[in-house]
Amino acid sequence: MAGTTTADEIFREFKEHSISEFFRKNSQMLGYSGKVRSLTTVIHEYLTNSLDACEEAGLLPDIKVEVKQLGEDRYSVSVSDNGPGIPFKHVGKVYATVLAGTKFHRYVQQRGQQGIGATGCTLYSKITTGRPVHIKSTTGRESYECDIDLDIKSNKPIVKMTAQIQEDGHGTTVYGEFGDVKYENSDHGIYEYIKRTALSNPHASITLIEPEGKESAFLRSSDELPKKPRAIKPHPLGIDVNDFIEYAHRSANRKLSAFIVETFSRATQGKVAELKEIAKDIDFESDPAKISWVDAEKVIKAFKQVKWMAPELDSLSVIGEKQIEATIKNILSPKFLGVVERKPKVFRGGVPFVVEAGIAYGGSSGKKVNETKADGTVVEAEGNILRFANKVPLLFDASNCAITDATKSIDWKRYGIAKFDEEPVSVLVNVSSVYVPYSGVGKQAIAKEDDIIEEIRLAVMDCGRILQRYLSGVRSMHLQESRYKTIMRYVSQLSKDLGEITERDSGDIEKSLRSTIEKKYSKLFSNGDGQENGNSVPDEDPKEEPEVGEE
Amino acid sequence: MAGTTTADEIFREFKEHSISEFFRKNSQMLGYSGKVRSLTTVIHEYLTNSLDACEEAGLLPDIKVEVKQLGEDRYSVSVSDNGPGIPFKHVGKVYATVLAGTKFHRYVQQRGQQGIGATGCTLYSKITTGRPVHIKSTTGRESYECDIDLDIKSNKPIVKMTAQIQEDGHGTTVYGEFGDVKYENSDHGIYEYIKRTALSNPHASITLIEPEGKESAFLRSSDELPKKPRAIKPHPLGIDVNDFIEYAHRSANRKLSAFIVETFSRATQGKVAELKEIAKDIDFESDPAKISWVDAEKVIKAFKQVKWMAPELDSLSVIGEKQIEATIKNILSPKFLGVVERKPKVFRGGVPFVVEAGIAYGGSSGKKVNETKADGTVVEAEGNILRFANKVPLLFDASNCAITDATKSIDWKRYGIAKFDEEPVSVLVNVSSVYVPYSGVGKQAIAKEDDIIEEIRLAVMDCGRILQRYLSGVRSMHLQESRYKTIMRYVSQLSKDLGEITERDSGDIEKSLRSTIEKKYSKLFSNGDGQENGNSVPDEDPKEEPEVGEE
Repeated sequence: MAGTTTADEIFREFKEHSISEFFRKNSQMLGYSGKVRSLTTVIHEYLTNSLDACEEAGLLPDIKVEVKQLGEDRYSVSVSDNGPGIPFKHVGKVYATVLAGTKFHRYVQQRGQQGIGATGCTLYSKITTGRPVHIKSTTGRESYECDIDLDIKSNKPIVKMTAQIQEDGHGTTVYGEFGDVKYENSDHGIYEYIKRTALSNPHASITLIEPEGKESAFLRSSDELPKKPRAIKPHPLGIDVNDFIEYAHRSANRKLSAFIVETFSRATQGKVAELKEIAKDIDFESDPAKISWVDAEKVIKAFKQVKWMAPELDSLSVIGEKQIEATIKNILSPKFLGVVERKPKVFRGGVPFVVEAGIAYGGSSGKKVNETKADGTVVEAEGNILRFANKVPLLFDASNCAITDATKSIDWKRYGIAKFDEEPVSVLVNVSSVYVPYSGVGKQAIAKEDDIIEEIRLAVMDCGRILQRYLSGVRSMHLQESRYKTIMRYVSQLSKDLGEITERDSGDIEKSLRSTIEKKYSKLFSNGDGQENGNSVPDEDPKEEPEVGEE
Repeated sequence: MAGTTTADEIFREFKEHSISEFFRKNSQMLGYSGKVRSLTTVIHEYLTNSLDACEEAGLLPDIKVEVKQLGEDRYSVSVSDNGPGIPFKHVGKVYATVLAGTKFHRYVQQRGQQGIGATGCTLYSKITTGRPVHIKSTTGRESYECDIDLDIKSNKPIVKMTAQIQEDGHGTTVYGEFGDVKYENSDHGIYEYIKRTALSNPHASITLIEPEGKESAFLRSSDELPKKPRAIKPHPLGIDVNDFIEYAHRSANRKLSAFIVETFSRATQGKVAELKEIAKDIDFESDPAKISWVDAEKVIKAFKQVKWMAPELDSLSVIGEKQIEATIKNILSPKFLGVVERKPKVFRGGVPFVVEAGIAYGGSSGKKVNETKADGTVVEAEGNILRFANKVPLLFDASNCAITDATKSIDWKRYGIAKFDEEPVSVLVNVSSVYVPYSGVGKQAIAKEDDIIEEIRLAVMDCGRILQRYLSGVRSMHLQESRYKTIMRYVSQLSKDLGEITERDSGDIEKSLRSTIEKKYSKLFSNGDGQENGNSVPDEDPKEEPEVGEE
């Protein structure tokens, strides 16, 4: 091969690389792209960890976030919580080993799942400032401060204890310095992120101190801890052959039948009997640890032919109808809002998830734009979408998200919205699941799985129907009101004329006429009529509501 | 803490996980979501590896792809190439270790970069069918066949040699079986993927055998190997502090000044002298291996104040203007096409990249839709975008891609396209770089970096201008033609009348009149006039071109 290179020459450079190195080269995949986004990503990771830790320990979170400017494009971030603390022997891996964590293997709904987030922050701090992160933690049994650096080549932590302190209580503070970041008060900034987080986590108190020193306290609105999500058994319809074999190999059961009953949700002896009828050549008394791929495949196939009860759903922790209502009122002060909580569903056959949705119209709903169109009309606001996954706000990658796709695919005209992009309407969607299929490692968008998109569509359409009743109420009210006003304009003159003709007292006539007309248009004087199906915001005044589509 | 859980209890479950496990749980991040997409992803990974291997070895690729249906949602894939082959001692890691590869550390443009793709296929085969992949390879020094399985927990290969054969030549065949996949002839299917790959790699011959047995050969149109991309030195403006220190630690130089000259592109003794003037407190005679973060930061700051020559650009390998033209003609048979190759630029300060773009109008350009709009007009086609990165077609995640954003952000009205979504127009963009910042691990979209978006915009706007000249040419041609026809309609009668009035021969008058008119409208009878700036497709007939905006 003249002029060519041989395999041996090429493979001389063959190497293996650590996952830290991979993400160091591809930090944009973790959410580190753009200065504003990078800083929000840091806050997102630390805040998520604090909320999860408190939830797991059964504590009402008190979290303080402080951001300070250190120089051009350089900021420090400090996040303190009252969580359970981190045992010293684990703290290095928590903050400086990609893919280490407590949450990876459990089948339970949590915000974090991957063991990437906090280490990603350490990595980003290191590559932009060369600095380690500093941790102070108290678990009730031990208290310490330490610096943690990440050895990128080996994906291993370098921990330097800086103080062993005596302190009661419990909690963790993480402090890091970051370069190539920027604090900005925008839709994608930290203030917005924390506001939305506070709103979807009413049991948490979060204080933010911004670089200019401004302090904002988002106090808890509920002293009730959210239902602690339970780790659940996997559902027979949500399992694939590979998972089945893994479970079988780990099982203490020596019989396939017992293994199935103990491992899977909704599996009973009765169901195993049904399975035996279907998969006749499988020996259900055999050792599950020795099952072959082909046999496991047959069992999975049989699973799909049996009727199962739906998956257990108490593994799911939602924001809640009332809280979404409060959230929307708080952020948007809308003229109208409606909230829908759907029943839990499953995707990929057996992974439970639940969709909550809310819709708001008027007030600060939608995104202000004030655009003048070609035909001269002015669009004041365009529809916008507030996305959440497991109660965590998603601020980035909107175009890559199932929530965006589902909401935009709806025929809004059917619900009284001529164009979603030209109306003051906001849609809020929260998807909760033990396993949210994120489209990227940075977890800012939900993968476009058909089952999930369909369920979001149904939830948003439910909201649309509620809105539509309200909007048609408003419209008919407007029509009635304009008729009423027109008629009233003639009452005085008509009464006078009738008085002259009939020689009766025109004052009596006017009184009588007015009373008749007012009776006919009585709806205009009672409150909230025609809107009983939605959750009309109490202090709204329908007369101030502009006609839809003419704004 | 009554009812609460302590840190020690929580961390009892603390574990570390392998990168294989992570991707096993999040295979959607590698492109395995949806049956059609999953199969295309497999082909994409194997084909990319084959093309890279041949290019690196300096061989004209002959590649054969065969897809067979094995059962419902189950297919086998076999990809054979005439590449350099894989030494047996490395083959396990190539196919069954995430993040192992030859390409990770080099600063050179290649399709694959991450050492994830082929192992991702093995992982997907394993979790959907439980089967290993089978490899047959000949390097010229050794020939063998083997089965390769992946131990997910440890991210290590399990290799079983099945045959040691005597064979001349060189090349590799990979065979794998995949479940939960589907062969489909669609925009996102394999046929389309291979067609686009062949078109952007004119030096490659690719044969596809589809499940029904249909064989399609995409033969090479050029015997010329693409310029072999060179590994280049990093540019001083494209380096961050962390990278600088890594290079410094690896350097054999014992003096900072010599290290800078040898390590970075465009760095000379003269430039070091300039740096010394700026960073006065840095000792350029000190040992680079001992440089501190703070000092390295000062050097990087000084780098930014010196004027450097632009990065070396021969590291970039483009599709080429002629080839894009051929590509577009071949796929779209347009009425008109224009191609632009921009000069190389840099992003993130110093990473070189280059954008090529083409535009096509009419023929099969755009995506057929045949939609009837509210006002009754029919939209036959909508604008579409053919995306490539380092000559690899990107079929998925369009909404998440810089190319999509850049193209859609353009004010198409300025270029004679009333609405991009309602015209038969196609835009092709290829971004080449030693480092393409993909937005996800699956490498189907380019991250939305400002510098890259801006450069794509400029390239596409260049195309727009060429198109605009053509379209206005077509429009004025139409106007002239209709005037010409109108006048010609009267010539005969007018000549007769004039003949009677002046008593001259009406035939002579008609001849003279016709000649005068034809002279005035001579443009209608010469070919290609008014379009000299675009690459009008030779066999086009402007008279058949419909008026823009009236389709």
